[in-house]
Amino acid sequence: MTILAAATPAAWVDAAAERWRPLLTDHANCEKKAASTALALIFAYPEDTALSVALARLAREELRHFEQVVRMMRTLEVPFERQKPGRYAAGLRRHAASAEPRRKLDLMLIGALIEARSCERFRLLAPRLPPPLGGFYADLERAEARHHELYIEHAKANAGDIDWEQRLRRLAEVEAELVTSPDPVFRFHSGPPGP
Amino acid sequence: MTILAAATPAAWVDAAAERWRPLLTDHANCEKKAASTALALIFAYPEDTALSVALARLAREELRHFEQVVRMMRTLEVPFERQKPGRYAAGLRRHAASAEPRRKLDLMLIGALIEARSCERFRLLAPRLPPPLGGFYADLERAEARHHELYIEHAKANAGDIDWEQRLRRLAEVEAELVTSPDPVFRFHSGPPGP
Repeated sequence: MTILAAATPAAWVDAAAERWRPLLTDHANCEKKAASTALALIFAYPEDTALSVALARLAREELRHFEQVVRMMRTLEVPFERQKPGRYAAGLRRHAASAEPRRKLDLMLIGALIEARSCERFRLLAPRLPPPLGGFYADLERAEARHHELYIEHAKANAGDIDWEQRLRRLAEVEAELVTSPDPVFRFHSGPPGP
Repeated sequence: MTILAAATPAAWVDAAAERWRPLLTDHANCEKKAASTALALIFAYPEDTALSVALARLAREELRHFEQVVRMMRTLEVPFERQKPGRYAAGLRRHAASAEPRRKLDLMLIGALIEARSCERFRLLAPRLPPPLGGFYADLERAEARHHELYIEHAKANAGDIDWEQRLRRLAEVEAELVTSPDPVFRFHSGPPGP
């Protein structure tokens, strides 16, 4: 998790421990969004078959977690409701370079940061949530712990002459700002509640 | 397979037995396209959680087959090359109703037809291809045999007052025309080679 530039603020964790019901719906959306992002990268870079196979496996795992979240929602009688997306993913992707080969590198690094943040939040939430949700989040943290490494590995393999570590630090600052500054929309990847 | 309105012409099977190398690349594209179509339906109808879970499982299976096709391409030294899509999927989707609830029903029926056609072609190709490809296609036919039933089941569940069987027959005619009439672009779901 050392790729993250800042820890999640305690105010977010406190709010999440209280608002876990709407958060679970957003979590279901995050899992399917993670799968569709991986699939979009498979379509964007089809000639990189090593990346395609790694991302297909990752997408399968995210889809399995999506199915588990839906089952958990049924168990805990959390009704499905449509939610508008928060600022996080769009706020990060806005910083991706538009020209290749920098774009591919940036998308790998952004993928790594999102996965690392998800894992950090699973870990912070696990001890704060009632069973069976706490145990489920602890399981997810273990299951997804390697996902950010997959993205970092492919970022390195595609960096060429670009200083990917410097680029990662820059994108990590953007990511940290998005999850630590007050956020009017409370979500799994939002900042703490605020104006 | 009785939902199909026409069998694949022998001329397509003959061409496929000869041109299996470029066809394998298109097959890889079909598996990932099947996964992304399932995922798109999950995003389009999020409140139908039974459908979402069924499609997530289906997408996982298509992704696993995609990984297997990529491995098969490596084994058989088939290089990856970009291919423009054929007329089939777009030609079918053009006939989907634009307003709900008819659109959802049509997308389920079109999904069923595409899956049924894939299975029929796996079955026709298996005895015509050299090992290990013939055996692989026989395995895929068995694995994907139930996919069209999943789509039919959800079509029925969503039909309401609409005569879904009549609608299926109409879309099956469109599908049959696409796979039996001469086609300038040779693909897994194309018509036989022709002008």
